[in-house]
Amino acid sequence: MAKAAKVNAVVGQSGGPTSVINASLVGVIEEAQKHPQIANLYGAVHAVSGIVKDRFINLKKVSAKTLELVAASPSSALGSSRDKPDEEYCAKILDIFKKRNVGYFFYIGGNDSANTCFIINNMAQKAGLELRAWHIPKTVDNDLLVTDHCPGFGTAAKFVACAVLGDDLDNRALPGVKIDVIMGRNAGFLTAASALAKNKEDAGPHLVYFPERPISMDKFLADVNAVYTKLGRCVIAVSEGICDTDGVVWTKKITETTEKDQHNNIQLSGTGALADFLAGQVKGALKIKRVRADTFGYLQRSFAGLQSPVDAKEARMCGRQAVKYAVKQPSGSVAIRRLKGAKYAIELFATELSSVAEKTKSMPDEFINSEGNSVTDAFVKYALPLTGGLPKTEYLGNYPRV
Amino acid sequence: MAKAAKVNAVVGQSGGPTSVINASLVGVIEEAQKHPQIANLYGAVHAVSGIVKDRFINLKKVSAKTLELVAASPSSALGSSRDKPDEEYCAKILDIFKKRNVGYFFYIGGNDSANTCFIINNMAQKAGLELRAWHIPKTVDNDLLVTDHCPGFGTAAKFVACAVLGDDLDNRALPGVKIDVIMGRNAGFLTAASALAKNKEDAGPHLVYFPERPISMDKFLADVNAVYTKLGRCVIAVSEGICDTDGVVWTKKITETTEKDQHNNIQLSGTGALADFLAGQVKGALKIKRVRADTFGYLQRSFAGLQSPVDAKEARMCGRQAVKYAVKQPSGSVAIRRLKGAKYAIELFATELSSVAEKTKSMPDEFINSEGNSVTDAFVKYALPLTGGLPKTEYLGNYPRV
Repeated sequence: MAKAAKVNAVVGQSGGPTSVINASLVGVIEEAQKHPQIANLYGAVHAVSGIVKDRFINLKKVSAKTLELVAASPSSALGSSRDKPDEEYCAKILDIFKKRNVGYFFYIGGNDSANTCFIINNMAQKAGLELRAWHIPKTVDNDLLVTDHCPGFGTAAKFVACAVLGDDLDNRALPGVKIDVIMGRNAGFLTAASALAKNKEDAGPHLVYFPERPISMDKFLADVNAVYTKLGRCVIAVSEGICDTDGVVWTKKITETTEKDQHNNIQLSGTGALADFLAGQVKGALKIKRVRADTFGYLQRSFAGLQSPVDAKEARMCGRQAVKYAVKQPSGSVAIRRLKGAKYAIELFATELSSVAEKTKSMPDEFINSEGNSVTDAFVKYALPLTGGLPKTEYLGNYPRV
Repeated sequence: MAKAAKVNAVVGQSGGPTSVINASLVGVIEEAQKHPQIANLYGAVHAVSGIVKDRFINLKKVSAKTLELVAASPSSALGSSRDKPDEEYCAKILDIFKKRNVGYFFYIGGNDSANTCFIINNMAQKAGLELRAWHIPKTVDNDLLVTDHCPGFGTAAKFVACAVLGDDLDNRALPGVKIDVIMGRNAGFLTAASALAKNKEDAGPHLVYFPERPISMDKFLADVNAVYTKLGRCVIAVSEGICDTDGVVWTKKITETTEKDQHNNIQLSGTGALADFLAGQVKGALKIKRVRADTFGYLQRSFAGLQSPVDAKEARMCGRQAVKYAVKQPSGSVAIRRLKGAKYAIELFATELSSVAEKTKSMPDEFINSEGNSVTDAFVKYALPLTGGLPKTEYLGNYPRV
């Protein structure tokens, strides 16, 4: 069922950028060059919002040198969009695709992007258009279904772990309570990655809180007090998406910011409100003098020069594989399967768009400890290889005294 | 005037940690091993606060392998302290030094640490004690006098530049206003380092604000509006220490946090208040929908695995040089001189403790543009070599359209 006619292809990058989404883009570009049935490869400028405005660049004209720079650069080199196309929006996309003789659509993004592919694919089928829509996974939240993990997560996890590694050493030097607020609206994977920094028995993060485990302020303060009493210090990683035992997200309770994006999500990132609120609670209730809080913010997804080599490689593989699938079979989503064995290894496979579209995955129970305030060894085993390894660190303060 | 008797040495790390203060510590340790007149080298646990409690570890017993790990690790491996010793405090230090037969004191820190060395040195002279106190410079703020730059600044500058490099690409992908709040209580050097990320004419940071240039909210908003109108986006770097035209620090105006450290400084770091306040002002006054703000916080001084190789090397040299000076001449502070020539090169020299103690340096006028909202080429020339180079990045959105 290979396509006969020579047609054009479109590739776009959607939603929040990551540090390796450009590696996936470059994977699509380099693979597309190898297939003569793909005439031109058009890059959609600012994703679907560029497609409906007929804004494209010809990616086959970009030099190999530039492509390598792009692959190593964070963010979405084509520009991104938060638009969530409905059928009317997708009809406009299909009009442009018809006009430009587009037979392949590659869309790099999260579950919303998989859904866009799903809608467009269905509409094209109904209209009798031959269009193959392939979704390429990306998200720092690691919350897509089917795939073992998402390109973008490994590098974000590396950033978070390196930040907490250093932060814990800083907190050893000047002891107190340190709170780090980490991205992850509904899934705690990225917050859990902070625990990869725990390279010693008494190293932080000493407490880790996830959206998957609602927590009361009383329990939070009791946890902090217990660690502080024992160690004289406490490093805490908190997901921006943690919620109270009544199910309401803490950020919603404490901020008047009601800005919502077009997917009807409350803005959780780009504000220090949660961190400052938690610091205030700890100071007030526990009478601890030195309490500091940082919100890692957008650096988690965009810090330059910090790609996990494993993540970057897999992201590029996913881009290439999408093209390989597309020239052979109808629409779908590229997914990663982890192979059994002592050494980390993966293979790619194709899954249905419907299995990824609009759904999200949470941390499985086996990754969260029974108290709901840290991770298990199973999580470390799962996540550490994705970072490509972390820097080794050491300190001296606990050496035997003279 | 070489010392005859075999005596012991003490080394300590004071104030806010940096990513290379341990490189200086290791420099002291490895050089001290070479000088037979130094019997034992004691590491002061938590700086002066450990000295007065007689809390030391024997650094000559630490393995070479551990030392290399320590040198590569952020934060102060011996522990730090914010104590600012007065004469009474220093008298206790001298008592311990007498008890332990300490003839050399190496103190790695900022201007307060230089002052501690200065007081101790004067008191020792008055008491007829033979003690050589050497200050080794460290600060991410780069605000010490005499020296061309401070160990610790280059790596913090690298962090800030890499963060803004990625942040600007993120802001290209999803355009809006992005505000980044950067450390630097009185000196704008670290905030200025954000401008090292400006690798294209239209790249951010588009606006940079320093403590050295008071600014009104009206001017700030007019600046942002001008950039946003022209480019459709705006990336802004703001020092935590910026003040209004009446001289009052903005953070003081907007936060009820009145916590002060023992040096009577208001807490500026570890809170997202300034960033959130500025974002609110831009949203409210300019009616721009997508406004985000991050406070880089403690990651600037502690992120693991990101040392500038130039900074790490110089920090270690400074530690070694302090020992070399100490065995030959009385007290002083190690300083860096930049050599003239096309290629970056430095040499070390000794300066008086009194020339560094208690004073701070601001950004020279030649580093700030006439509008007071960005840096000059002279600053880039000054600061870029200290980072050891920055990652190259690229994007595609502005390529010619098809």
